[in-house]
Amino acid sequence: MEKTKNRLEVCLSPAIYDKHSDDENLVVIVDVLRASSSICTAIHNGVKSILPVATVEEASEMKQQGYIVASERDGFVLDFADFGNSPFNFTREIVKGQEIVYSTTNGTRCIHMASHSKAVVIGTFLNISVLADWLIRQNAPVLIFCASWKDRFCLEDTVFAGALAERLLGSGKFETICDAVSASIDLWNLAKTDLPGYISKSAQKGRLASKGLDDCLEYCLTADQTSVIPVFQDGRLIDVSKVNEVMLNL
Amino acid sequence: MEKTKNRLEVCLSPAIYDKHSDDENLVVIVDVLRASSSICTAIHNGVKSILPVATVEEASEMKQQGYIVASERDGFVLDFADFGNSPFNFTREIVKGQEIVYSTTNGTRCIHMASHSKAVVIGTFLNISVLADWLIRQNAPVLIFCASWKDRFCLEDTVFAGALAERLLGSGKFETICDAVSASIDLWNLAKTDLPGYISKSAQKGRLASKGLDDCLEYCLTADQTSVIPVFQDGRLIDVSKVNEVMLNL
Repeated sequence: MEKTKNRLEVCLSPAIYDKHSDDENLVVIVDVLRASSSICTAIHNGVKSILPVATVEEASEMKQQGYIVASERDGFVLDFADFGNSPFNFTREIVKGQEIVYSTTNGTRCIHMASHSKAVVIGTFLNISVLADWLIRQNAPVLIFCASWKDRFCLEDTVFAGALAERLLGSGKFETICDAVSASIDLWNLAKTDLPGYISKSAQKGRLASKGLDDCLEYCLTADQTSVIPVFQDGRLIDVSKVNEVMLNL
Repeated sequence: MEKTKNRLEVCLSPAIYDKHSDDENLVVIVDVLRASSSICTAIHNGVKSILPVATVEEASEMKQQGYIVASERDGFVLDFADFGNSPFNFTREIVKGQEIVYSTTNGTRCIHMASHSKAVVIGTFLNISVLADWLIRQNAPVLIFCASWKDRFCLEDTVFAGALAERLLGSGKFETICDAVSASIDLWNLAKTDLPGYISKSAQKGRLASKGLDDCLEYCLTADQTSVIPVFQDGRLIDVSKVNEVMLNL
């Protein structure tokens, strides 16, 4: 007998996460500008693993233990860190074969919040097609979790959630009664013909531009630049191809 | 010298309220289906005042004190209550001159959450034009606070927030860097040519329909049926015309 369709939901803020939380979920963490994009870039460029840490204190401690540390708060590189949160920092020359500690204002906290789930993966425009195909194959409920900005609603993460949700629903394998899915798909369809133009009105674009950090905007909004799917496993983000699916319990 | 423009924000869920909270805000509580619409209807029909209470226990206690009680949880009328949350319950015959205790799943809680603010008013399509004009005249920051459904994002409240936000920004008296304002206006513009059709995909429409409670949908989505603006004053909702503006500190 055909299995019933799997549940699809979008969570628009970490403040609402406990309303969507379910141990059975595959959770897609979305922090388009810029943590998701940086993590995908680092793994694409051959990083051995990324250790996302939630607090500045942990990041600082890991630096003293000798790790390379990428860490920002509010767009400012922390003084003990090697570099910040731009995907352009994670070049092949710097990251290949390395273990990198990573801590940001919003995205890394969400990874830990969702770590009780069946699997936690990282989603962004850079890997949207391979990610959608992988999620469709897993036959499990999916929660797209927007990291947002300090718990406030955030346009760019929501638009990405809509782009991914549309592909998942289009597969016929998912169903939803979540208003955030409908709204995010509608916003994606408004944005998709000129994504950088649409996102230019977002608060995060303004925050990045005021610090000269918006040079990565076009890159972060360009689909399908990598086939990696970062997955959170034993405290580390690695490519899903490196993980035995039995270990993921899928 | 011209005062700078006032801040406009939209809060999409009570779970995010503390990120938008400010004692200086005029807060518009939005629970389109159905608390906002019922409160406007009751005041339009001559209720003396409405006492919004957050908990079932308070509502039950007030019933024992002899009040008329309107109270629902999850669309079910509480057994001690006189009636539930449909605006059609609040007829002139029943409410004129009465003090009515009112408690619902989402909307009444938000009124109390925001009671520290400069003023708390009730917004819905039924009173959108008079409300917009009144807010524009006050020269203060405005927060449109969507009651949502148990902290989850909710389509119909967001669409109303967009409709109201568009009018406020159109006055030239407000400015915003809030992504929820942009998104809600975009959703309103998608919805406005067929509002009942657009809202028919919302989870709340489904919840109401499953209990036969969606008969009020068209009424709740029809603009400008009343000129009342319910304002929360000394624990009661009354029409703003009954309040001395000095008392509101406006």
